[in-house]
Amino acid sequence: MPRLIAIDDPADARIAPYRDVRERDLVGRDGLFVAEGKVVLEKLVDSTQARPQSLLIADKRVAALATLMERLPDDLPVYTADQPVLDAVAGFPLHRGILAIGRRVDPPTPDQALAAAAAAGRDVLLLSAIANHDNMGGIFRNAAGFGAGAVLLDRDCCDPLYRKAIRVSVGATLLVPFARLAAGADALALLDAYGFSPLALSPNGAERLADLRPQGRQAVLLGAEGPGLSPALLARTRSVRIDMADGFDSLNVATTSGIVLHHLATRDSAVAAGNQPR
Amino acid sequence: MPRLIAIDDPADARIAPYRDVRERDLVGRDGLFVAEGKVVLEKLVDSTQARPQSLLIADKRVAALATLMERLPDDLPVYTADQPVLDAVAGFPLHRGILAIGRRVDPPTPDQALAAAAAAGRDVLLLSAIANHDNMGGIFRNAAGFGAGAVLLDRDCCDPLYRKAIRVSVGATLLVPFARLAAGADALALLDAYGFSPLALSPNGAERLADLRPQGRQAVLLGAEGPGLSPALLARTRSVRIDMADGFDSLNVATTSGIVLHHLATRDSAVAAGNQPR
Repeated sequence: MPRLIAIDDPADARIAPYRDVRERDLVGRDGLFVAEGKVVLEKLVDSTQARPQSLLIADKRVAALATLMERLPDDLPVYTADQPVLDAVAGFPLHRGILAIGRRVDPPTPDQALAAAAAAGRDVLLLSAIANHDNMGGIFRNAAGFGAGAVLLDRDCCDPLYRKAIRVSVGATLLVPFARLAAGADALALLDAYGFSPLALSPNGAERLADLRPQGRQAVLLGAEGPGLSPALLARTRSVRIDMADGFDSLNVATTSGIVLHHLATRDSAVAAGNQPR
Repeated sequence: MPRLIAIDDPADARIAPYRDVRERDLVGRDGLFVAEGKVVLEKLVDSTQARPQSLLIADKRVAALATLMERLPDDLPVYTADQPVLDAVAGFPLHRGILAIGRRVDPPTPDQALAAAAAAGRDVLLLSAIANHDNMGGIFRNAAGFGAGAVLLDRDCCDPLYRKAIRVSVGATLLVPFARLAAGADALALLDAYGFSPLALSPNGAERLADLRPQGRQAVLLGAEGPGLSPALLARTRSVRIDMADGFDSLNVATTSGIVLHHLATRDSAVAAGNQPR
């Protein structure tokens, strides 16, 4: 169990990585990220994708973390501070009182991520131009909740390890393996190489999700609300729609991911029922 | 079509309702609410539940609203201002440049809302202690998207007409009829009186949603993430669960509403398949 290091000066150089975390979020930092809150910290400790580098905890929250602390390596720096010092360091009132700096370890390539998901018999997600951190976090939360094996991101997606995306995902972005596609990569060829059948979600999809009884491993393709997936991509895939009520054709993309992944997660019973003659 | 009224002084008394909208959000105001953005304004104009009282538009956005403006009553005050004046009035940078004050008209009682939904053959939602405006907005967006007929709220739910809830709902809180239960009201007896069968969502629900083939009109009961629905309520209802992957038993309540409403909206094909002998 690590020993606690008391900090009483917001300018202390040892906690420099925590300074002004809101602004720092915006800057890519070699696989480093900021995690906040107890639940997210628990996921970080559980993660095989990431490791804590240090913790910064409000004095009053130390007791609540006692059990978790026992699982941390002895040499992990765990800084403690009173609330005013913590707020001064973070640059805003840090009510949760729990911050950690984490680092991704051995991030998989797209090939590695797909190979592992295929070996585990899991479905995957392929995200295109998801630029909103709430949506990114919500999609990962659903990916973890319904057992997706990996998430692939195109170049126009935001960072799943941005602080807010981690928080909205309830730590799922630290658990579900993800990889960013190289510029110009042929995502569909890559999915095909690992045996994933693409299901492209679109309001104008040819097939209705509820009627779908897909066999084998699926790759769920999701684009940003509004523009959606590119016509070029849709032309090469099986397109699927979720029917909406008249006059309100608007579904959040994270909610869409939950509906699709739930449908896929329960398709075995659906197949049993759906294969009967009507 | 209304004529435009130019405002060049942020202190102009005619636009007092728009002053410091962030703080005002927090105060109940006799059925008045603030709507922002073009899409939400369109829903407000379409709404039978609410009416615009006035608009405040950035000069640069007037042209984009020309078509919508034609549908507004001649006597509706439409104020215009340049961006600095608008920001000064609102109290923050109002990038969307479109604000409206709306008012609920003839809000239904719970009985009226259920009677109308029953007559239309629609399912309804009953929300308990949904205190987060993002979740409230997300639930209404799904209610509108999947054609729910009404939303009932208990006393511990936040206001669906809070500015952020309206925005997240993409205006759905202006379209789906809702009513707040009186203190001590027996919600289940009320649902029963109008022929709605309660489906209570709970992580420990007795039945799996995917296996459910409900007949007739349903009332979907949702509680806040974490505490969930009360044990007393669960004991009196059919309880339903959404199975999650091992190690990540966490589903957002708005996403849950989308999954359940999608399942119900597509149950007719499911019934056809599920009623066959296996």
